[in-house]
Amino acid sequence: MIKVDLVSDIGEGFGRYKLCDEEAIIPLLTSVNVACGYHAGVPNIMRKIVKICKENEVGIGAHPGFPDLMGFGRRFMKIKDNELENYLYYQIGALEAFCKLYGLKIQHCIAHGAWGNWLEQDIENARKFVKAIANYNKEIIILAISGGFRIQAAKELNLKVANEFFADREVQNNGRLVPRTVSGSVLHDKDKIVKRVLKAVLENKLISFEGKELNIKVDSICVHGDTPGSLEIIKAIRAALLKEGVVITKFGDFI
Amino acid sequence: MIKVDLVSDIGEGFGRYKLCDEEAIIPLLTSVNVACGYHAGVPNIMRKIVKICKENEVGIGAHPGFPDLMGFGRRFMKIKDNELENYLYYQIGALEAFCKLYGLKIQHCIAHGAWGNWLEQDIENARKFVKAIANYNKEIIILAISGGFRIQAAKELNLKVANEFFADREVQNNGRLVPRTVSGSVLHDKDKIVKRVLKAVLENKLISFEGKELNIKVDSICVHGDTPGSLEIIKAIRAALLKEGVVITKFGDFI
Amino acid sequence: MIKVDLVSDIGEGFGRYKLCDEEAIIPLLTSVNVACGYHAGVPNIMRKIVKICKENEVGIGAHPGFPDLMGFGRRFMKIKDNELENYLYYQIGALEAFCKLYGLKIQHCIAHGAWGNWLEQDIENARKFVKAIANYNKEIIILAISGGFRIQAAKELNLKVANEFFADREVQNNGRLVPRTVSGSVLHDKDKIVKRVLKAVLENKLISFEGKELNIKVDSICVHGDTPGSLEIIKAIRAALLKEGVVITKFGDFI
Amino acid sequence: MIKVDLVSDIGEGFGRYKLCDEEAIIPLLTSVNVACGYHAGVPNIMRKIVKICKENEVGIGAHPGFPDLMGFGRRFMKIKDNELENYLYYQIGALEAFCKLYGLKIQHCIAHGAWGNWLEQDIENARKFVKAIANYNKEIIILAISGGFRIQAAKELNLKVANEFFADREVQNNGRLVPRTVSGSVLHDKDKIVKRVLKAVLENKLISFEGKELNIKVDSICVHGDTPGSLEIIKAIRAALLKEGVVITKFGDFI
Repeated sequence: MIKVDLVSDIGEGFGRYKLCDEEAIIPLLTSVNVACGYHAGVPNIMRKIVKICKENEVGIGAHPGFPDLMGFGRRFMKIKDNELENYLYYQIGALEAFCKLYGLKIQHCIAHGAWGNWLEQDIENARKFVKAIANYNKEIIILAISGGFRIQAAKELNLKVANEFFADREVQNNGRLVPRTVSGSVLHDKDKIVKRVLKAVLENKLISFEGKELNIKVDSICVHGDTPGSLEIIKAIRAALLKEGVVITKFGDFI
Repeated sequence: MIKVDLVSDIGEGFGRYKLCDEEAIIPLLTSVNVACGYHAGVPNIMRKIVKICKENEVGIGAHPGFPDLMGFGRRFMKIKDNELENYLYYQIGALEAFCKLYGLKIQHCIAHGAWGNWLEQDIENARKFVKAIANYNKEIIILAISGGFRIQAAKELNLKVANEFFADREVQNNGRLVPRTVSGSVLHDKDKIVKRVLKAVLENKLISFEGKELNIKVDSICVHGDTPGSLEIIKAIRAALLKEGVVITKFGDFI
Repeated sequence: MIKVDLVSDIGEGFGRYKLCDEEAIIPLLTSVNVACGYHAGVPNIMRKIVKICKENEVGIGAHPGFPDLMGFGRRFMKIKDNELENYLYYQIGALEAFCKLYGLKIQHCIAHGAWGNWLEQDIENARKFVKAIANYNKEIIILAISGGFRIQAAKELNLKVANEFFADREVQNNGRLVPRTVSGSVLHDKDKIVKRVLKAVLENKLISFEGKELNIKVDSICVHGDTPGSLEIIKAIRAALLKEGVVITKFGDFI
Repeated sequence: MIKVDLVSDIGEGFGRYKLCDEEAIIPLLTSVNVACGYHAGVPNIMRKIVKICKENEVGIGAHPGFPDLMGFGRRFMKIKDNELENYLYYQIGALEAFCKLYGLKIQHCIAHGAWGNWLEQDIENARKFVKAIANYNKEIIILAISGGFRIQAAKELNLKVANEFFADREVQNNGRLVPRTVSGSVLHDKDKIVKRVLKAVLENKLISFEGKELNIKVDSICVHGDTPGSLEIIKAIRAALLKEGVVITKFGDFI
């Protein structure tokens, strides 16, 4: 029986700003990556998400970002290791307060935007990040791009890992995402996306942007909730997976 | 045997800014109120404080503030109840992450600046605040001005309370602080401060700004660490109390 | 020949966040109130707006707010007079840089959200505000709610004023807006809104929320650009006014 | 007759935080680089500085920084060209508002911290920066490290330039500063600093960190105001220069 998780970046509003409809999307997911206030996210939204996750048994993950609201955490910032480590703890802790309020635990952690990209540029970056999480709580699962440096670094420390597969993002031969700036790097066609997801989940195969067949491990399928039509795509993925007998459940249940 | 705590607001620097020398002051204290990032405070400082507190067995308290770095949390902001409650949790959680890293727990919580003042303006404000803390963790002690609304509200909920006495601030007949803007409201003379502290701790008496003798309960003596000569005042208070056989220890040990 | 201005709050996005489609709405307006970075707004958006205003001969106004991104400038903050005055200059200056780049001048200034409300609570607040603007540049027109304290205070100093009429907001007998929290305070029906605008512009009359006929002076009609259907309402107002022979032009041209 | 300017980074406090005593230092200087709110600086401080500068005929420069209060603008941020350009305008404009209030003009502009370092890493970065300033106002003088990329780029556009010499920072053979992280890179000995300044101003010579004699053009001597003893060093430099008949005056007067 194949099990897979459906995850999305959530809670990326701020004050009056809203990027997605949490009430609508969370029940369609099994895990969420929650913005923790540095690149986006405010306490009211964080709490609302945790509450909805509890009602829907959805796994909660911390999604720490660089302290850059104006850049939405998507701009690289050269931050000293010890500061970055403490930015991580600060944000995890803030989210954990809301989890505690509802009797829940943090399922996983995944760095946002430019932080995440930087972790995949050098195994040493990835090692420091996963070690910092291990020092905090060895039960927190490391969610990261399938087969990347964080997954490798986490395995070295015997941490639990979840391999993330991006439903709508093209992948290079080396396993990395094709940058958003490259034309065609983001898929929009629902049928193509669904087909690609099925191939990845059922066969563990993926056709790279360059056209080569790659092996891929998929624990969690990353979908988006902030674009027009994104809910329809999630529903289509869910339906297709269920039809194939795949069990859609939070990765905390099977990892 | 009389027991009393010595507490100070700590960690109120930000980025490059430093307001006090944490390494020098913390070993002279038995508890600290730690800024949590909204009115002041950054992760690196928060962690350093927690580490020093562990080494010195000093009690750690959350010192949440309004989200107003520019105003240092000293300006009233009209914030909705549910938002304010979640600002509280966010900040407690962030501090708790660092405590967890060192195997420690949060001893107490006290609102900073304008938030704290607002809580003492209406018993309903105080009730909502202490109830929010109780919903989070009933073990967290409510530190607040001796005999004020928060102390009253916390007792109504059977929460543990610590009565705070300000070593260098004049008090009105009604038990409230004389505003800083009033000339003479802040004491600077070391001998006067020490005398006043001894009277409060040993006799539970206080002469108000208007000249009336008041009764006062003192669990914790609040001192400052950010003014010239402040370390000398703390040392003098310590010496005078010890000479009288008073045990100086964190209030978490005796409340 | 009756002349009237059509104005809207603009540029209230931040970083990745977008509240309205500036390219679509600005050409339908004759003036804009531009967020300047404290409650919302970032340099890229500010510049884009100024550029579009130049192309469309739209009057540019500074829309300074409280330094409260999380609260969108809608929460009262108790700020000292001299600080508030300097927050005003800082924000006007920032916007003026972009105007200068395109050879334009600031047409007007209007405080945003809680700041604006606070100015209407006490004529002294209003006097300090308009005097601060006069000290900076006497050519800047004071835009404010028709017949309110700012208008009065500006007239006392012989400053130029523009009376603002809110197309979709109910007004009390005393001339103030019915708070948003009151049910029915915001109109959504296009036909009603258009009728109300015509009555105000052509007859200088307004039926209050309580049902009384009030006199009103209208230099500028405030419309919204961030709600569904708001562009349609603006177009309907424009069409109805033009049909009646009203000239829709920026108030800088006729005040 | 040799003329030289004395400049310092000023206004880098924030809210309650204060880094230097502006009243004491500004009268000893002839120009200042004013923080504009992104990496440090608040409106009240900006205004106070402009007022003191007016009273002392000191030249005012904008000191724009990255939007990173937590990192004091000292951390590189990968920001898109058009955003960075608009951050520049925003900050210049904000400062210009205060200048306007006192009938003054901006004398110069110099990027702060990591932004300034980045401009010297690639002539293309420097070209974009000086071109942005030229598009805004060709009268603004480009202040930058003597002989660096910004000076070169500004000359290409026929802009006015001021060569900055750091009184207390060692220089490499290639003309760049020895990084602060290198031991011995910052001089603290008053007599050595004064000697070095005299050699640079009178002979246009400098001994590099590696021991080689370099030629250097000096229009402005950069001194610091935020370290213990810094005022004494400034006074010693002033006295030594005056004794040699050097005229100390703002570079706006002689460039």
